[in-house]
Amino acid sequence: MKNLPHKTIERLSQYRRALLLCHAKGMTYIYSHEIAKIQHITAVQVRRDIMLIGYTGTLRKGYNVKELIDLIGQIIDSKEGINVCIVGIGNLGRAITNYFSGKRTKLSIVAVFDVDKGKVGKKYYGIECFDIADLTKVIKEKKIEIAIMTVPGEDAPMISDILVKAGIIGMLNYTPKPVNVPKEVYLEEYDMITSLEKVAFFVKTH
Amino acid sequence: MKNLPHKTIERLSQYRRALLLCHAKGMTYIYSHEIAKIQHITAVQVRRDIMLIGYTGTLRKGYNVKELIDLIGQIIDSKEGINVCIVGIGNLGRAITNYFSGKRTKLSIVAVFDVDKGKVGKKYYGIECFDIADLTKVIKEKKIEIAIMTVPGEDAPMISDILVKAGIIGMLNYTPKPVNVPKEVYLEEYDMITSLEKVAFFVKTH
Repeated sequence: MKNLPHKTIERLSQYRRALLLCHAKGMTYIYSHEIAKIQHITAVQVRRDIMLIGYTGTLRKGYNVKELIDLIGQIIDSKEGINVCIVGIGNLGRAITNYFSGKRTKLSIVAVFDVDKGKVGKKYYGIECFDIADLTKVIKEKKIEIAIMTVPGEDAPMISDILVKAGIIGMLNYTPKPVNVPKEVYLEEYDMITSLEKVAFFVKTH
Repeated sequence: MKNLPHKTIERLSQYRRALLLCHAKGMTYIYSHEIAKIQHITAVQVRRDIMLIGYTGTLRKGYNVKELIDLIGQIIDSKEGINVCIVGIGNLGRAITNYFSGKRTKLSIVAVFDVDKGKVGKKYYGIECFDIADLTKVIKEKKIEIAIMTVPGEDAPMISDILVKAGIIGMLNYTPKPVNVPKEVYLEEYDMITSLEKVAFFVKTH
């Protein structure tokens, strides 16, 4: 499963999210076209992705919701769980911490960091805030593998370098500034302005 | 320019972001390979996108930074400006409001909405908060065309329907719940859990 395309992983995560909602509503079976409708994609795409992970439904009933949730979990979750930290506990850092807390058992936010001494030592949604000066020490002690950067853009490159040296192997950069990481580190970057400008372009040409 | 691919629009927005930083540093010319390096893509891709909007640099000096910034602006910005609202002024709504305020002259956040009466009437980063019950009225009065949804997931489908009926033509959904909109409405959805799960998968198979 190591070589699944990035886009497939992304969609599997989204299918699971949809399946969890269906499961909570008491659905036991679901058709590919129903998943497709929720995700705004084609049923062919859904079937192709699910075939890639070696699962098939039945023509009459579709996929077993619970089985598919568990299988996607086996593929994308890590058995031991992965420790995550948030760097920068402003509005966005807080939104993410709140959003994730208790959502996924295999991904735990175990530390948040900030440069503001007034925040250090406090707890945010149950997670302790550490001094950003202790990044390296805390990352090693708590065996943190993924960092989510929500610092001001101008600090992103410096913080990113520290994170990489401290041993982070996955990074989500939510600052408006792109960063460079060695190719062994997996990096996702997301800038909200780009998304809004894209929507605005389509509104303009509407 | 109406038929530029979605991905090209996304990259043009990112090039502009990079170019604005370069411009602020006093750079007057830039090569495609320099832009490519900042964006983690190939120089061929950069040249192809920029050719698509009818611009060419010189072999010796590359692209004129200011000219390219202005040209991208002509392509992706709307002349009259577009009014935007944020629905749900929790941590994420506040992060986005703060992030955008004053960043783009052609995209203005003109209203934020919340269900919490304690927030209604207050200002967030200079923007007034209205009662979510007045969505339709305020959207029409303020000629708002784009809505950014940062409400709890369970409220997303209902709010989305109200927004569409009120005349919104572009929507950014930051809730964990996918929504359905008519095909005349341009929708971008982003879920942070999907991004984190993608990073986690690559960390797991590292």
